[in-house]
Amino acid sequence: MGYNRPMQKIKVSTQKREQVLDITQLVQAAVSKGACHDGCVVVYCPHTTAALSVNENADPDVKADLLQHLSEMIPQKTTFRHSEGNSDAHIKTILSGPSLTLIIENGRLQLGTWQGIYFLEFDGPREREVWVKTS
Amino acid sequence: MGYNRPMQKIKVSTQKREQVLDITQLVQAAVSKGACHDGCVVVYCPHTTAALSVNENADPDVKADLLQHLSEMIPQKTTFRHSEGNSDAHIKTILSGPSLTLIIENGRLQLGTWQGIYFLEFDGPREREVWVKTS
Amino acid sequence: MGYNRPMQKIKVSTQKREQVLDITQLVQAAVSKGACHDGCVVVYCPHTTAALSVNENADPDVKADLLQHLSEMIPQKTTFRHSEGNSDAHIKTILSGPSLTLIIENGRLQLGTWQGIYFLEFDGPREREVWVKTS
Repeated sequence: MGYNRPMQKIKVSTQKREQVLDITQLVQAAVSKGACHDGCVVVYCPHTTAALSVNENADPDVKADLLQHLSEMIPQKTTFRHSEGNSDAHIKTILSGPSLTLIIENGRLQLGTWQGIYFLEFDGPREREVWVKTS
Repeated sequence: MGYNRPMQKIKVSTQKREQVLDITQLVQAAVSKGACHDGCVVVYCPHTTAALSVNENADPDVKADLLQHLSEMIPQKTTFRHSEGNSDAHIKTILSGPSLTLIIENGRLQLGTWQGIYFLEFDGPREREVWVKTS
Repeated sequence: MGYNRPMQKIKVSTQKREQVLDITQLVQAAVSKGACHDGCVVVYCPHTTAALSVNENADPDVKADLLQHLSEMIPQKTTFRHSEGNSDAHIKTILSGPSLTLIIENGRLQLGTWQGIYFLEFDGPREREVWVKTS
């Protein structure tokens, strides 16, 4: 059929245990490289302690409030059974979600005025990937 | 390739700070207008303090329980840094998610018996949009 | 256009009120049966008290920690209004999400090394379905 392009892999390096990284421009570059003019893009996180989200791109305090509040809701409890001690990161990942499906028109990601695409690191620092597939 | 239709924009007006609105019929109308017979539809919320979900369409008490419990889990704390005072709404939005990908067959949205599509307003009242793209 | 395959329905039986079931192989089998070589697959849960997720496929303690912590965050409160007494299950479902969009290349689901696809039962035991549509 020929209309699908190979998946692209974006490299993301995180510097802290928990971090919110704006990857909007990296995803847009992958969309442009994939030559998708009109359709959808799946943005996918192949990790079990990191997730993807779309939210406020203006005030960095929103990111700090998010990480602080998630850590109060889902603390690193000593009663968790998982021996790696990062069950909090797995649970935050499940609630945030592994994938986004976004709309493309005229070769551009369609995002709201205040929206950016975020990589949510919950168990770094690590070398991570984000996979991008247009269709 | 010609098989993609332009994105449609649905207008949604909310009346309260927090509100759950059933938009199932509006999304179905957009799918029908887009003449999609068989495929998928991306339903996307371009806002940072409102989200989308699929859930119970029968008992309105489910909506009330959802909003009440989310507000207990994620209250409007005075310790949040974000100066607009709506960090709770951003966090609820991130956990609920900005987009849904739904299946279409024979021109109809494929939903479970008890499912409806909901717009979740967390910082209204506002004039909002929901974007719909079939493929 | 002829490139879309009919939706497939996977049967899932749950044995407990809350349960995390690995359905990765069932989804891969549906992808293979749908003869999708390259594209995306929408995996959809048509229920209002069960959801889908992607996470750790190695240590079963992660599943136990997830269910335990979600029940602490969202308990079966007597103050919920919904008369069926399962508002906790509806709220857990909304936060986990009803659908996943995954990438397919060379006929295989593209998942991270430690990732599996999970069916999250929050109000079983029940006979459930998961819908799979490739494109």
